[in-house]
Amino acid sequence: MLKLIIGNKAYSSWSLRGWLACKQAGLPFEEMVVPLYDQDWEKRREGDEFAPSSGKVPILWDGDCVVWDSLAIIEFLNEASGGDKFWPQDTAARAMARSMAAEMHSGFAALRRKHSMNIRQVYAPQQPDSDVLADLTRIMELWAQARARYGGDGQFLFGEFGAVDIMFAPVVTRIVTYSLPVARFAPAYMNAVLQHPFMQDWIAAANEEEWVIEQFEQPTA
Amino acid sequence: MLKLIIGNKAYSSWSLRGWLACKQAGLPFEEMVVPLYDQDWEKRREGDEFAPSSGKVPILWDGDCVVWDSLAIIEFLNEASGGDKFWPQDTAARAMARSMAAEMHSGFAALRRKHSMNIRQVYAPQQPDSDVLADLTRIMELWAQARARYGGDGQFLFGEFGAVDIMFAPVVTRIVTYSLPVARFAPAYMNAVLQHPFMQDWIAAANEEEWVIEQFEQPTA
Repeated sequence: MLKLIIGNKAYSSWSLRGWLACKQAGLPFEEMVVPLYDQDWEKRREGDEFAPSSGKVPILWDGDCVVWDSLAIIEFLNEASGGDKFWPQDTAARAMARSMAAEMHSGFAALRRKHSMNIRQVYAPQQPDSDVLADLTRIMELWAQARARYGGDGQFLFGEFGAVDIMFAPVVTRIVTYSLPVARFAPAYMNAVLQHPFMQDWIAAANEEEWVIEQFEQPTA
Repeated sequence: MLKLIIGNKAYSSWSLRGWLACKQAGLPFEEMVVPLYDQDWEKRREGDEFAPSSGKVPILWDGDCVVWDSLAIIEFLNEASGGDKFWPQDTAARAMARSMAAEMHSGFAALRRKHSMNIRQVYAPQQPDSDVLADLTRIMELWAQARARYGGDGQFLFGEFGAVDIMFAPVVTRIVTYSLPVARFAPAYMNAVLQHPFMQDWIAAANEEEWVIEQFEQPTA
């Protein structure tokens, strides 16, 4: 059986992507939550940039086979689940979808750093920094283009729920919890993401999570 | 015919990845070099993090279909060229290869920022910063594991030249031009990359490039 190693559900945005991918694949998987209270604590607080690197969550094991990055997990599960659950079937749509997923994977650093995911907290609205606004503007542009070209009658970016919605899901939660400004068309899409059964499950689990702050002793000289 | 839009060959490390992917696909393509002297100049100088974002190189056009990120270009060309030129055929090897490519895609920020690619310049060796050393250590670990598990009799990370070699090719040029420290096994692999006919072509073109520094007038108040 597949085993997915993830971090805390409230905070680990890359884990959310890996977990949604496993749910979307429809294959049975076991999840293992590792608390992130270790030397990565400070890095984690700065955002989620650290996550895809060495030994970080999410990590998917399939027997001896290991996949350690959310985008690689998506491609792995796409192949393992028949190739029709993650990417649009149309070649041009798929090219755009993969470009958007890749842009999310390596981009939007300001949004990620300054508004790190915390599903359990609602922050007082404040004017976002200009670099965050630039990220949001680009995201609105991408969402609008995907919806206009390939959304069809579906509720999601390329019609049905898929890889690109998974990649942007943590952005949706940030927009809500930080009251970030969005384009007029966006709330309908964001609601569809938030109401998706997989997201509802994740959010419920994030809110129930036991969250024990361990006390570390300072090393003495 | 495919059209690939790239930046200057000496400096644009993401362009190198997109271009190598086109060569590797073996499909005819037209290349279009756009000089990067515009408002992105300063960003470009800081490294290549900006490249995969909005309107940045490399961009691949196939008729009306556009792919604008190097990793998405690799997946697109992998499908377009029959599925056997980029990723290993073995499932576990392919999972590792995709994880490594994805880690390169979003990671190694210190190495990228502090040692941005410049194929035409050899820098005096100096002690790299500790965050750069950490990036190099992780890269050596990844290369060693790929070579040991899946290198076989081939010269490249997974035997034959493929997507992961393409993703790491700009790292190879940086290691050489900045005289960065590497593990004992690495030079043989790096030489194989540098001697690859595609790399030889790119390096020759980078050295012949006309490089006109335009004078911009400062805006007056």
